[in-house]
Amino acid sequence: MDKKEINLVLKKSEKAFKIYRDISNVNRANFLRAIATEIEILGHALLDTASRETNLPITRLTGERGRTLLQLRLFADLIENGAYVEPIIEKNLRKMLIPLGTVAVFGSSNFPFAYSTAGGDTASALAVGCPVIVKGHPAHIETSRIVAGAVLKAAALTKMPDGVFAHIEGDIDVGQYLVKHPVVKAVGFTGSFQGGKALFDLANRRKVPIPVFAEMGSINPVFLFENALINDAEKISTLLADSVTLGVGQFCTNPGLIIGIESFGLTNFINLLKNKLKVKMPGAMLHQGIANSYKNGVKTMLSEKNVEITIFNHDETPINGFPVLGVTNGSEFLKNKTLHQEIFGPFTLVVICKNKNERDGIIENLEGQLTASLFAEPSDLKNQKKLIQAITQICGRINLNNVPTGVEVTHAMQHGGPFPASTDSRYGAVGQSAVLRWLRPISYQNFSEELLPNILKNEK
Amino acid sequence: MDKKEINLVLKKSEKAFKIYRDISNVNRANFLRAIATEIEILGHALLDTASRETNLPITRLTGERGRTLLQLRLFADLIENGAYVEPIIEKNLRKMLIPLGTVAVFGSSNFPFAYSTAGGDTASALAVGCPVIVKGHPAHIETSRIVAGAVLKAAALTKMPDGVFAHIEGDIDVGQYLVKHPVVKAVGFTGSFQGGKALFDLANRRKVPIPVFAEMGSINPVFLFENALINDAEKISTLLADSVTLGVGQFCTNPGLIIGIESFGLTNFINLLKNKLKVKMPGAMLHQGIANSYKNGVKTMLSEKNVEITIFNHDETPINGFPVLGVTNGSEFLKNKTLHQEIFGPFTLVVICKNKNERDGIIENLEGQLTASLFAEPSDLKNQKKLIQAITQICGRINLNNVPTGVEVTHAMQHGGPFPASTDSRYGAVGQSAVLRWLRPISYQNFSEELLPNILKNEK
Repeated sequence: MDKKEINLVLKKSEKAFKIYRDISNVNRANFLRAIATEIEILGHALLDTASRETNLPITRLTGERGRTLLQLRLFADLIENGAYVEPIIEKNLRKMLIPLGTVAVFGSSNFPFAYSTAGGDTASALAVGCPVIVKGHPAHIETSRIVAGAVLKAAALTKMPDGVFAHIEGDIDVGQYLVKHPVVKAVGFTGSFQGGKALFDLANRRKVPIPVFAEMGSINPVFLFENALINDAEKISTLLADSVTLGVGQFCTNPGLIIGIESFGLTNFINLLKNKLKVKMPGAMLHQGIANSYKNGVKTMLSEKNVEITIFNHDETPINGFPVLGVTNGSEFLKNKTLHQEIFGPFTLVVICKNKNERDGIIENLEGQLTASLFAEPSDLKNQKKLIQAITQICGRINLNNVPTGVEVTHAMQHGGPFPASTDSRYGAVGQSAVLRWLRPISYQNFSEELLPNILKNEK
Repeated sequence: MDKKEINLVLKKSEKAFKIYRDISNVNRANFLRAIATEIEILGHALLDTASRETNLPITRLTGERGRTLLQLRLFADLIENGAYVEPIIEKNLRKMLIPLGTVAVFGSSNFPFAYSTAGGDTASALAVGCPVIVKGHPAHIETSRIVAGAVLKAAALTKMPDGVFAHIEGDIDVGQYLVKHPVVKAVGFTGSFQGGKALFDLANRRKVPIPVFAEMGSINPVFLFENALINDAEKISTLLADSVTLGVGQFCTNPGLIIGIESFGLTNFINLLKNKLKVKMPGAMLHQGIANSYKNGVKTMLSEKNVEITIFNHDETPINGFPVLGVTNGSEFLKNKTLHQEIFGPFTLVVICKNKNERDGIIENLEGQLTASLFAEPSDLKNQKKLIQAITQICGRINLNNVPTGVEVTHAMQHGGPFPASTDSRYGAVGQSAVLRWLRPISYQNFSEELLPNILKNEK
């Protein structure tokens, strides 16, 4: 698309906002439900296209489509009664949330439905009265076009204003143009650190800076405790081998770092983990670029000092990713920041710490994470309140005896974490609270009943 | 203070956080109340010092001290039952808000108590478990030191950890060093656009960017409607003359822009406003720098085309600010952005629009504002929902038949607005919601009862 076409899209979006912000919650909810219905109607053809473009299996895509429909309906349910605007009614002063305006959405390659064209960012923004412009992901552009068609059809059926949703295509320039444009008031992004940080910087350098909610992934540390390793190494190694290789490791919550303290239990665990990774076969990654990045990441690890690398079931198929395990020691990990970097794919690094002090030092030095997990017996965590507190400081979700992969879509979910896991740790991309990213408060002072928005009027 | 001393302050603050975040809500509330008590104990000596440093009259400072005590006690009340962490309890997943860490506070010159050393930013951050480092405002450094002494005394009395609060002094370099330091996790600022924007940029360029909540003022447009002008010009002109000159115009909510449509009513209003400004005498401004800026701002206006400037009761006292009225037309205002700039002091600009279209064009082109006010009869606003919507888009508080000065400290208050009024329109600096700036959500997944924070445990 050239600039002229994009400018037209932006102009329409600006105009649409002036109508869309006043459309009733019930009508917006119906629009979201219509989108879900239209996506359902696309049936198997959509799944086939997505599978062809992303190499993701149909079963996985079926599940992800289900989650996408769930999200659309969940946001519809959320807004219907209007409470999401958090009305506060005092005598003379009344406050509520209002929408920011047009939101630009950049979907992820690894969730072609749930975090893409009609995914969580789009659904949450449309829910609360913000028009959306999606920049279609080049890695699944056909899928994106088809889903965009469903959204536009739903918009027409439910009589939403022209321009309430748009799908644009193009290279990085187009995305940057979008983020810099005055009509765009906020950005949702799911993807790499490089991509998210570039948009964040761009948005902050605007004459009028705008918020960028970028979820940029993390290495999701897993902490193994002594008694858990003694009693449960078999089970923990199975869970982690499965989690590391789930979806060829292509989840932002993939456990890329496993930390324990030197012991017989830890050595035993590492051997068990190796045995379990040994039986995990290579799988096709999302696209060649991601497969290349994965292999380059592994190559970098191979050249690092004091890291023992084991590659499992390597095959020569260019698109395939294969399980890789790294093992290093705590002091090496502390001094070499390359070992802290995410390698997107079925890779994990075990760090053997000399003692608790070294482990606690690592916790203090870890960057922000989406999740942190602890495998521990109750006895391991007795009087460990300070340790748990320290771990909460570095993540958005803390998990006990459970792998980090698998993100529930509920009110209590926080998906997001301290930078660089996301650009704004006060918000999350999953669950109902995702709508708060696109809203801001306004106070009405001394307004008469008839001029107040309905939700702020005195109760009858 | 040299860097070595500041580093020591930062180190202590980092250590303090690890203790302070676990201190019970009740104990933190007691700390806040003790601060209020210690400030009260300072009695008239504090008021005298502040008055000497800021030229603000004792009556005004007495009121502001009252508001400061109120704020401290209000945040104490807010946190006491713990609900401010917004706990969400689902079966396996539970969410709450946790503090970000050390907050750096930059107070304002025009609120030496309520938006300074122990003001709203400090009180809201301390309330929710964040240690605070205040950079004392050079324009009232002695006041700042005395209030800091009261905070430290209260911290000692209530056994808060060493480093929970610190007061540092220095020039711009010191402030910048603070904002760039890894220990600092968020910034509260009240002051000029230049100052706030500089800190915002600095914070965004950090390796780990942090949020800056800068409230940077605005020109607070006032819209005058036809029938209100016909029936109420006398009263409206009195209210606005008072509001423009209140506190020598040194409020961020000062009405610096008055917009109406060409009519006999508007001409009459302008004459009345002139008559009322004529009897307002010059007053000492906060400090010589501010007085100089005010006079330079007025000088700039004098050199602009198609702006008629009237200066009232000008005297030669260097520190004094005197009322100034500008009058221009809508098309001039639309094309000359200099006329959109805030002149901090008792200045206001009346814009005479040709018609409604021109006025509506101005609304579309105004930058973000803290407040917007409408003086209108019910008949003026009949079927004007779109107009009211357009005005809400540019401000954080919309006011009917009421001047913008005077900010209540309540739940329903929004003090903050779209950029450049503040750096993040989703948050406010006044009222209970101010605590949300210093908190972020975390989810606990699969945690056992005994390991969960108390507020997330199953209800007994």
